[in-house]
Amino acid sequence: MNADKVPDIIVGRLPVYLRALQRMAEKGMRTTSSQELGEHVGISAAQIRKDISQFGEFGKQGTGYSIPYLINKLREILKVDRMWDVAVIGAGELGHALSHYQGFANRGFCIVMLFDNDQSKIGKKVGEFTIEDSSCMVERLRGANVKVAMLTVPAAVAQAVANQLIQAGVRAILNYAPISLNVPDGVHVQYIDPATHLQRMTYYL
Amino acid sequence: MNADKVPDIIVGRLPVYLRALQRMAEKGMRTTSSQELGEHVGISAAQIRKDISQFGEFGKQGTGYSIPYLINKLREILKVDRMWDVAVIGAGELGHALSHYQGFANRGFCIVMLFDNDQSKIGKKVGEFTIEDSSCMVERLRGANVKVAMLTVPAAVAQAVANQLIQAGVRAILNYAPISLNVPDGVHVQYIDPATHLQRMTYYL
Repeated sequence: MNADKVPDIIVGRLPVYLRALQRMAEKGMRTTSSQELGEHVGISAAQIRKDISQFGEFGKQGTGYSIPYLINKLREILKVDRMWDVAVIGAGELGHALSHYQGFANRGFCIVMLFDNDQSKIGKKVGEFTIEDSSCMVERLRGANVKVAMLTVPAAVAQAVANQLIQAGVRAILNYAPISLNVPDGVHVQYIDPATHLQRMTYYL
Repeated sequence: MNADKVPDIIVGRLPVYLRALQRMAEKGMRTTSSQELGEHVGISAAQIRKDISQFGEFGKQGTGYSIPYLINKLREILKVDRMWDVAVIGAGELGHALSHYQGFANRGFCIVMLFDNDQSKIGKKVGEFTIEDSSCMVERLRGANVKVAMLTVPAAVAQAVANQLIQAGVRAILNYAPISLNVPDGVHVQYIDPATHLQRMTYYL
């Protein structure tokens, strides 16, 4: 299996399957079918079978998928069978919300640092974190070998901060600023921009 | 042009093009090419031309696209050439962050209401909004004809609250709770779940 050969659109659906399977497991379910999983995620059973079969034969005709087995396989494929340290850049309301967010548990991520450039915020506690000075960010990230960051700074400075993150060795940036970032090959960016998501729905209204 | 005939994957890219074009316009640019736009959004020029041509002939060979014209066309196609009233359900840190978010300006959305079921929050001000009692939510949304909502409640209650939103006439839900929602045909859901976005990147690391 060559990671580059699986279309990105399929890769993008795997975390959705994983999330649904983890919810099923929490409810005590042990097996599922592509039909049932499809109803949970709003994707056709045929598409799910096709997507999952890109990575091997994980289900059996007639008996379906073992939920714990498929969870383990998907965690392995997505490389979240380990914990990734994550830095949050920007300690505004969104940075605070992310620092307290419970949804990372069990999903491969652990927030370890929170930065801001506002002198009135630096040193303050947010839950278990102390807001650190972003002027020390590159050094701190490099020292701790952090590869994943969430960017919640204003749009006007997002590219400059992203450049620093990349310089520090970060390879995956979840960008909440409403601009597209230019990054070199080998650095991955995902965007969370509520207006973009809303516009995708108003098209259909 | 029939809205149902354009693949959803293309529809999903239009807001990204629109955002990039609006940034270009803010910088005073008047024209662009599919190459230049592609560099801003990380999508190939050929793909952009193909996507946009689904809706008509908006560019000219050799001179490219007029930015104001293409912005107007995309706003029309995405139905954000008008303002949509939006309700925020859940006045936690994320609900607060969304209520203060500046990124909706100029993009077709205006937050008009904020609800919570926590008696200690109801009646408090968040910027210009007063947190309203979610027990009055269905009536309030229906009375104001609100079609768009952002859901920032805990996962355990997200489906129940979504059901109420649908009952109230909401047709587009931006769901921040880390679960998949079951909704009837004609109701649209988009998900913002940072762990899912992060997992999509760790695959490549």
